[in-house]
Amino acid sequence: MPMDPRHAILFEPVTVGCKTLPNRFYQVPHASGFGSSRPRSQAAFRGMRAEGGWGGVCVEYAAISPDSDETPECSADFWDDGHAAALALTAEAIHAGGALAGLELFHGGAASVNGTSRLPRLAPSQVASELQYGGLAKELTAEDIARIQRDWAEAARRARDAGFDIVYVYGAHGYLLTQFFSPVLNRRTDGYGGSVAGRGRFWLETLATVREEVGGDCAIATRIALHGDSGVAGGGGLPGIEADEMLELIAMAADLVDLFDVTVGTWPENSGTSRYYPEGHELPWIRRVREATAKPVVATGRFSSPDLMARLVADGVIDLVGSARQGIADPFLPRKVAQGRYDEIRECTGSNICILREESFHHIGCVQNATAGEEFRRGWHPESFPAAANPEEPVLVVGAGPAGLECAVVLGRRGYTSVHLVAAEPAAGGRLSWIRGLPTLGDWGRILDYRLVQLGKLGVQVITGQRLSTADVLGYGARVVVAATGSAWRADGVQPGIPEPMPGAQAGPPFVLTPEDLCVRGLRPAGKRAVVYDTDGYFMAPALAELLAKEGYQATIVTTYPVLSPVSDQTLEGGMLRAHLHQAGVKVVYATTVTGIDPGSAVYGADRDGEPWRAACEGIVLVTQQVSRDELYLDLTRDQAALGGAGIAAVYRIGDCVAPRMISEAIFDGHRLARELGTEDPSMPLPYQREPAGLA
Amino acid sequence: MPMDPRHAILFEPVTVGCKTLPNRFYQVPHASGFGSSRPRSQAAFRGMRAEGGWGGVCVEYAAISPDSDETPECSADFWDDGHAAALALTAEAIHAGGALAGLELFHGGAASVNGTSRLPRLAPSQVASELQYGGLAKELTAEDIARIQRDWAEAARRARDAGFDIVYVYGAHGYLLTQFFSPVLNRRTDGYGGSVAGRGRFWLETLATVREEVGGDCAIATRIALHGDSGVAGGGGLPGIEADEMLELIAMAADLVDLFDVTVGTWPENSGTSRYYPEGHELPWIRRVREATAKPVVATGRFSSPDLMARLVADGVIDLVGSARQGIADPFLPRKVAQGRYDEIRECTGSNICILREESFHHIGCVQNATAGEEFRRGWHPESFPAAANPEEPVLVVGAGPAGLECAVVLGRRGYTSVHLVAAEPAAGGRLSWIRGLPTLGDWGRILDYRLVQLGKLGVQVITGQRLSTADVLGYGARVVVAATGSAWRADGVQPGIPEPMPGAQAGPPFVLTPEDLCVRGLRPAGKRAVVYDTDGYFMAPALAELLAKEGYQATIVTTYPVLSPVSDQTLEGGMLRAHLHQAGVKVVYATTVTGIDPGSAVYGADRDGEPWRAACEGIVLVTQQVSRDELYLDLTRDQAALGGAGIAAVYRIGDCVAPRMISEAIFDGHRLARELGTEDPSMPLPYQREPAGLA
Repeated sequence: MPMDPRHAILFEPVTVGCKTLPNRFYQVPHASGFGSSRPRSQAAFRGMRAEGGWGGVCVEYAAISPDSDETPECSADFWDDGHAAALALTAEAIHAGGALAGLELFHGGAASVNGTSRLPRLAPSQVASELQYGGLAKELTAEDIARIQRDWAEAARRARDAGFDIVYVYGAHGYLLTQFFSPVLNRRTDGYGGSVAGRGRFWLETLATVREEVGGDCAIATRIALHGDSGVAGGGGLPGIEADEMLELIAMAADLVDLFDVTVGTWPENSGTSRYYPEGHELPWIRRVREATAKPVVATGRFSSPDLMARLVADGVIDLVGSARQGIADPFLPRKVAQGRYDEIRECTGSNICILREESFHHIGCVQNATAGEEFRRGWHPESFPAAANPEEPVLVVGAGPAGLECAVVLGRRGYTSVHLVAAEPAAGGRLSWIRGLPTLGDWGRILDYRLVQLGKLGVQVITGQRLSTADVLGYGARVVVAATGSAWRADGVQPGIPEPMPGAQAGPPFVLTPEDLCVRGLRPAGKRAVVYDTDGYFMAPALAELLAKEGYQATIVTTYPVLSPVSDQTLEGGMLRAHLHQAGVKVVYATTVTGIDPGSAVYGADRDGEPWRAACEGIVLVTQQVSRDELYLDLTRDQAALGGAGIAAVYRIGDCVAPRMISEAIFDGHRLARELGTEDPSMPLPYQREPAGLA
Repeated sequence: MPMDPRHAILFEPVTVGCKTLPNRFYQVPHASGFGSSRPRSQAAFRGMRAEGGWGGVCVEYAAISPDSDETPECSADFWDDGHAAALALTAEAIHAGGALAGLELFHGGAASVNGTSRLPRLAPSQVASELQYGGLAKELTAEDIARIQRDWAEAARRARDAGFDIVYVYGAHGYLLTQFFSPVLNRRTDGYGGSVAGRGRFWLETLATVREEVGGDCAIATRIALHGDSGVAGGGGLPGIEADEMLELIAMAADLVDLFDVTVGTWPENSGTSRYYPEGHELPWIRRVREATAKPVVATGRFSSPDLMARLVADGVIDLVGSARQGIADPFLPRKVAQGRYDEIRECTGSNICILREESFHHIGCVQNATAGEEFRRGWHPESFPAAANPEEPVLVVGAGPAGLECAVVLGRRGYTSVHLVAAEPAAGGRLSWIRGLPTLGDWGRILDYRLVQLGKLGVQVITGQRLSTADVLGYGARVVVAATGSAWRADGVQPGIPEPMPGAQAGPPFVLTPEDLCVRGLRPAGKRAVVYDTDGYFMAPALAELLAKEGYQATIVTTYPVLSPVSDQTLEGGMLRAHLHQAGVKVVYATTVTGIDPGSAVYGADRDGEPWRAACEGIVLVTQQVSRDELYLDLTRDQAALGGAGIAAVYRIGDCVAPRMISEAIFDGHRLARELGTEDPSMPLPYQREPAGLA
């Protein structure tokens, strides 16, 4: 099918300063976890986006000096020629794909802990802030200011010499330029504070210095943030900065800037997840930038719809379609649009697993794209797969949850012609088929939808409503069997640190319920007061509590953690999730362990000080632990003779039936096995390449 | 002064298996933050301990395979020849110092998140535990067990080939061997669970496999933990393992082991800080090991007293004096004992800054020894200093807190003959002089005591009770001035995110108090109900609340954090601190912000949901933010002509008067300046060496 002609506008070249981008698809800077210390992984990751058709591809934030040391965050460093040599590989890889390469130079100011460099933090003023946990900052002197601007210019020169086309003066997300612009964090009286011009002076001077140094050779971009409306705490955002003031600054900076990279609000809002923000929620703010400048503008909005992208360009809202997360989920989106392969676009789910991995100091990953971050490490390509050596070999995948679906898709792409994916339930999807029905979790269904469409196109047979026994599998006629039978929530209350069943849990429904009881079997507590007990710490307990609250229950989450859903802080959802639940009337009991149940009347346990705790209720939902459904795999592998007799050469298992884990990791596991099927021992992953590999 | 003859026993050689240690000083494995990815830093760090006289020096825990991937923890990896080549440098450096080199091979089991390798976690059973936050583990199959044992033997072979003399089978601290031995975490029924022999089988088999592989070439050590009595949560300790069972296992393992490395309890107990554990608190358990084996035993106890060390050996409690923290604080302790330089031993303060740095994923540091971890990075040696080029140049250090003291000591060691250290207070020590008087913080005084003794020996003039004005400094006759004037707690209630003074704070004492009001000026709240408001998150607020509670006040800590003193979790003190405060009757209000004070009656603010909060009280202590006392420095540097006229060539500043921070970082800053005085621009640190430096 040909490209929709309305989308042609996306393929127009765009001039930014002295450079011209080949099209309007632009990968804004975002973290990869590779920084400058894993240069080959970085180059392969960014190069893949260029290969996929993005006209501009940027590297993540790169520190101009050692007093902007973000360790243990996996940012890049760009203090000297060593770092420049490392990142030159990336500029080269981006150019090889036909794109322009951008480098986001920054100084973290008070946000940089400087734990490795052991230098004092720096800030416009010595004002305590959430950025300064563990130590206050040094108030910058005039000499410090001049030195930082010099460092920035020198870093820009190194960037140019390393091959970068676009050089950033990064001012969003609470780093040093924002700290100067914030009337909360900047209390200076020396000409670098006070009015908009005063608070903006450091920013403008830095732009001028960088332009003077490399303006003839590079496009100069600046990343700014307009204040959104979420008011969500956390993330070191824009304390006290109003949109009108930022527009004033943009107008003042316009002559110094070739490209305005516009974000909105603090981190949780800027990287808003699908649970709490729709696609393009930033647009009301982005539209205002035109009030201040006619210079090219790029902005993100978790855009996955080419229609919306084209309309925003046609309407003059943006010049470049910015993307971070959608480009992680599908590096080849531009080429797929150009070729009219719309139904092959892997849409970002907006679940921020990419950010969770960075927040836990790991390299990037993606729930939709298992190859993200594995380009160099494992040599994986998102659109290219090793052809099956024995394509006719019949493969049976038992279980159509995330791991099974992904496995079947990859087998299909590899050319296996006889793949059967069999689900016990009436519909494919595994746990996702009901998780997507929970409040706020609808967009996670994209994981399922994308794969079902591909399976259809690839001719993989999807069979539902068939619960295969061991005998069924033996008689199925498969040569290779992959067990992807998932996991279930425990109903017995076994929880971290307490391996014995919880007294009273055996009463079962309606007083004692599991997530599946609620969502698959449709059971509910007997009365209005419902406790959801959470030792899991992620989305399940809050989503179930919200479900119950919406249905009129008085829902109380009892959590062993001191905060509600700590994992959600790693996806940047914590603040929104808590405000949302509070608004929904859900009560929370913190740092409390439930140790027993009096069926019909109450639950009891101990608070964080070990003092007894008790609450009357008419039901408890146990979100304590999942357990693998591994019976089929263990049964099959127990009797090798039977397998041989059935013509089954190998049985593998993937996903939660190996170990219950995040959906992204289950998908990774299914992908990995499918890609490596046919190697010597696919049950063990092939080794991956490390950086450094040895004595570097 | 000669060595005390009682200490000669410490210098006897000890045979462990096929190897002989030159003396009884033994650096047990402990984290450095260098792992295998910073091999030169690792080698220099460990090599320094050998140079300092330790007869055995071990490297931190090194994973035998990628499914024991501890990232982002800075452990070592030892999966293959690349890792072996990296760590061979360390074996070489240890040998160069005349010591034997040990490598602590381990598998983390369920404790390893495997975020980089993206393999499933592994465990004896699929039991949720505090180790499994973010995902359950795969229950190991018989094949998995055999494979891990093979991996262990292969890693041992690589260790031998890389030059290591002692190879560990590491079983303490909650890793895989402990998980197998724990009746809580191990629910197996296949011969690897159940009885002591069953739960210990994996451990014993692994020992046998390793011994078979390298037993003729290396000593085989195993690290075990006896259950202590703290019962403190956290750290993944010894769920359900009783000391008697561990002694049974030791007896069963004795033939397979050349050295028992014995620790006690969970992490917080094993690395017990001076706030909650005395030196040698583990001894009652350590003594019991002899019930089970006659093989050599090494144990730690934060031993800093050579008398105690010698007595324990003489009494047959231990064969080797184990040390981690004391060897970080003073790598040259053995040589100092041998030379009778007892008053030069830098005693460990037991404040666990070393661990805090590791817990925040940074390389090691030490409050007592600023050179720890900087051996390769900056080429620093703890006992050797560059001689001053102009030793007669008079240097005036203004302020005798941690930074000023350290600066003066280093200047003295460099040979500066005219150093004056001037304190405004009646005694040297700065904030430490009153912090050491707070409940549980007495041993932190070692920071001060050590430096005062050295200053006396070095002939540095320490002058107290003189508050120098700018004019005084100009007229002092110094050529170089170092401002080390520290910081003070704000009395106006300015706090993170709220840069304006807190309404009502201007009332001042006795209703509104600072830490200095309590501890220096001796002021107290007007009535019994005292609120301590904490946005700092470390030791100050809890210590003041305990002080007040002990004096009979009803003390309540209101903290903006969801837990009390989150920084104390990074020093492993959190659990003990909270239990201690609870026992002392201190109440805690969590996740609450105080926004105003009604002097004489109450404080008010908002809880974590933004709901109004109020508490009646007779006083509030503000532990919100420190601010630099930088007036002297700014005044002096404002008038360069006056400086020139006074013959002052340079003015520098160090420590908290630059930026308020941890004591360890203030000391580092003072050390750094003193060491680099005489370089081109000592106000900026010399660059340090990175690994990798560029495109590795």
